[in-house]
Amino acid sequence: MTMNSTDILVSNGTVLTMDSKDTQLRNGVVAIEKDKIIAVGHMDEFSTWKASRIIDARGGIIMPGLVNAHTHASMTCFRGLADDLPLMTWLNEHIFPAESKLDYNKVYYGALLACAEMILSGTTCFCDMYLFEDAVAGAAKEAKIRAVVGEVLYDFPSPNYGPIEKGFAYTENLIKKWKDDPLITIAVEPHTPYLCAPDLLKRASSLSEDYNLPIVIHVSETEIEVSNSQDQHGLTPIGFLADLQILSPNLLACHCVVLTDEDIALLKRYDVKVAHMPESNMKLASGISPVPKLLKEGVCVGLGTDGSASNNNLDLFLEMDTAAKLHKVNTFDPTVMDANTVLKMCTIEGARALGLGDLTGSLEPGKKADLIIIDTHKPHLTPMYNPASHLVYAVRGNDVTTSIINGEVVMEDRKLMTIDIEKVMKDVNTIAEEIKSNFT
Amino acid sequence: MTMNSTDILVSNGTVLTMDSKDTQLRNGVVAIEKDKIIAVGHMDEFSTWKASRIIDARGGIIMPGLVNAHTHASMTCFRGLADDLPLMTWLNEHIFPAESKLDYNKVYYGALLACAEMILSGTTCFCDMYLFEDAVAGAAKEAKIRAVVGEVLYDFPSPNYGPIEKGFAYTENLIKKWKDDPLITIAVEPHTPYLCAPDLLKRASSLSEDYNLPIVIHVSETEIEVSNSQDQHGLTPIGFLADLQILSPNLLACHCVVLTDEDIALLKRYDVKVAHMPESNMKLASGISPVPKLLKEGVCVGLGTDGSASNNNLDLFLEMDTAAKLHKVNTFDPTVMDANTVLKMCTIEGARALGLGDLTGSLEPGKKADLIIIDTHKPHLTPMYNPASHLVYAVRGNDVTTSIINGEVVMEDRKLMTIDIEKVMKDVNTIAEEIKSNFT
Repeated sequence: MTMNSTDILVSNGTVLTMDSKDTQLRNGVVAIEKDKIIAVGHMDEFSTWKASRIIDARGGIIMPGLVNAHTHASMTCFRGLADDLPLMTWLNEHIFPAESKLDYNKVYYGALLACAEMILSGTTCFCDMYLFEDAVAGAAKEAKIRAVVGEVLYDFPSPNYGPIEKGFAYTENLIKKWKDDPLITIAVEPHTPYLCAPDLLKRASSLSEDYNLPIVIHVSETEIEVSNSQDQHGLTPIGFLADLQILSPNLLACHCVVLTDEDIALLKRYDVKVAHMPESNMKLASGISPVPKLLKEGVCVGLGTDGSASNNNLDLFLEMDTAAKLHKVNTFDPTVMDANTVLKMCTIEGARALGLGDLTGSLEPGKKADLIIIDTHKPHLTPMYNPASHLVYAVRGNDVTTSIINGEVVMEDRKLMTIDIEKVMKDVNTIAEEIKSNFT
Repeated sequence: MTMNSTDILVSNGTVLTMDSKDTQLRNGVVAIEKDKIIAVGHMDEFSTWKASRIIDARGGIIMPGLVNAHTHASMTCFRGLADDLPLMTWLNEHIFPAESKLDYNKVYYGALLACAEMILSGTTCFCDMYLFEDAVAGAAKEAKIRAVVGEVLYDFPSPNYGPIEKGFAYTENLIKKWKDDPLITIAVEPHTPYLCAPDLLKRASSLSEDYNLPIVIHVSETEIEVSNSQDQHGLTPIGFLADLQILSPNLLACHCVVLTDEDIALLKRYDVKVAHMPESNMKLASGISPVPKLLKEGVCVGLGTDGSASNNNLDLFLEMDTAAKLHKVNTFDPTVMDANTVLKMCTIEGARALGLGDLTGSLEPGKKADLIIIDTHKPHLTPMYNPASHLVYAVRGNDVTTSIINGEVVMEDRKLMTIDIEKVMKDVNTIAEEIKSNFT
């Protein structure tokens, strides 16, 4: 009889591995050593194991932590500042003026609040685009959450780095500063094809190639963006990026709401990844991305929340629910975007979209230990016929009790272990008071 | 100096009255005597008041309890039993077979679980259509939640009452049994125009007129229903009901997904009320009700969850979020269905839709004391610029801490005072085991 010993055993739950066979294990266990998963199996296979710590899932669900494929974490500072407005009024009269007063500290505290909210709702990895991204990386490191972060690059002066030349220098500094960090990956993040000249876009693409890093861009978010691109370049935004030879497997194309069949063929041909943010696209009345078509073509699609100014929360469980339902009604087909497909978009496919598919997104030996436990012993989760269905259609973020990232327990029984949440809420409330005073 | 005394003061929160002026009071108080609200105002106006009990809202939001305009409470028993299926497969192979085995006790425990879930997510009043509705009324009475309940009537034999003749007798018995109950209102509830012959519909209408009770029907839920009606009667389902002279202010038309302009004109002319269930309509791929048009015409629209087999939870906060966003993207207009409009649909307009607008749905002296407290001191609700915006776009049902119905505290600090929730979950799990065994 072999006796194994390890650091943590997460035991006594239904394990959704999200592996390539969609393996589910009742009465399952995940064994963690240091930062990695070393074994997954049935409880009886682990009867002889010893562990420094046994975490009891109490009959709930054990699954990979969720991956938020696109957000602007620090926009928590603007949550609910301006809603129900035309897009240009919202941007020009509310969001841009508020953003022009940002600094490192505001971005840091806003990001820390977002990290708290994400951990509390089951997210263990997020991809961020914003200003002062060194602050976001710092906040994620403090919160001990996995993150892909990149400074937004565009042709007009940035409140952070000033002219674009310095934006590239800032990005290269981020790459150097964070290159050995176990949790932080730097990405190159040009804002959009319409706010970035071709030179900027090509240079961003080269930089991402040089370091083999993700390149993240907003693209084809609205009809007007696409028709302007047609007018200006005779090409769709995706066609324009293809023309610049920027489409690649490292590219994460965020939104992709308005796509032609040719656009979809291009995304497929170059193995471009897509981030889908249905709630933001709905709230801003942008449109509905043809995700079922993308999935049918085999394009990798992750799910994101976008920033909390256009959502207004960062709860991926609610985003999954909306994604599943929105595409059903949009295609008049109740079988599209079934629960398991949507779950994949928030786990293994989300991880692949960020270039982290080998590290996270499923519970398999050798992967980083990024996992969550969901308490299903609740009125709104009773009875349970099908765990995947519950996760998409009935669970809310606050049903997550415990979160482990990179082998470390960052939340246990809803208590955050890495963040002084009372202080962070106070800090962000102070920032909000300043924002209010600027607007009145 | 006058000294007032009362039973309960709910104090120290932002009060959203949802009255006709949309009055909001910071640092507000609601005074309750027996089952009624007797005063609403600022804290300083109440400095001399005495109360048997003071409930501290701790700076959160105090608002009317939410009204669920249409559900099938006992379908909690089938939550997640069958998802992502074509409508007819879902109904014929899963839901109808499961329903054929229902009895009084199953409906009772399913309804009690639904009442628990609804109270835990801020609902204080619901309108139900199902079988064995005496059990639903009994469960609501035990849970001390306000309810409008009616036995579903159709032309084929019911697992409860058998032939339709007995369905009317059953309904009349319900009316007699519950007529003096402070919480329960009986409604007359023919299923649909396509499962009810004209005689049944006319008789249901007369019965509702005789007792001045709501009449509740599913109507125009899908394209196929409307085209079948056109084929059979040369009329839309709404047109057909108009032809039968059934349209009236007491009629609650549930779904109304597929409407012509003439249908909308008829609903307006006869002051018919509409119940809108966007999540169910999305999940079953039925379509999107033209709610912004209905509201523009002044039609009263309440919001509902539908049953938890097609949602799969009963959380009206999530339903509000979806309603607000869905109509924005559907009309390409981010200003439609603003937060306050959606809040009204779940409070005062929902109450009006059920014929209870004089009793509940707003916080005004003379109304029944049906109110909830929302804890806003949470990461995902920080900062707070606008309470209405938070309620629709960021709050989840579990942010409700306290619920008062008809002057009685039914939940305090998330603890249910009227329901033994462990027992009810166990009972429904037992029912689910039986359902599973029937399907395997």
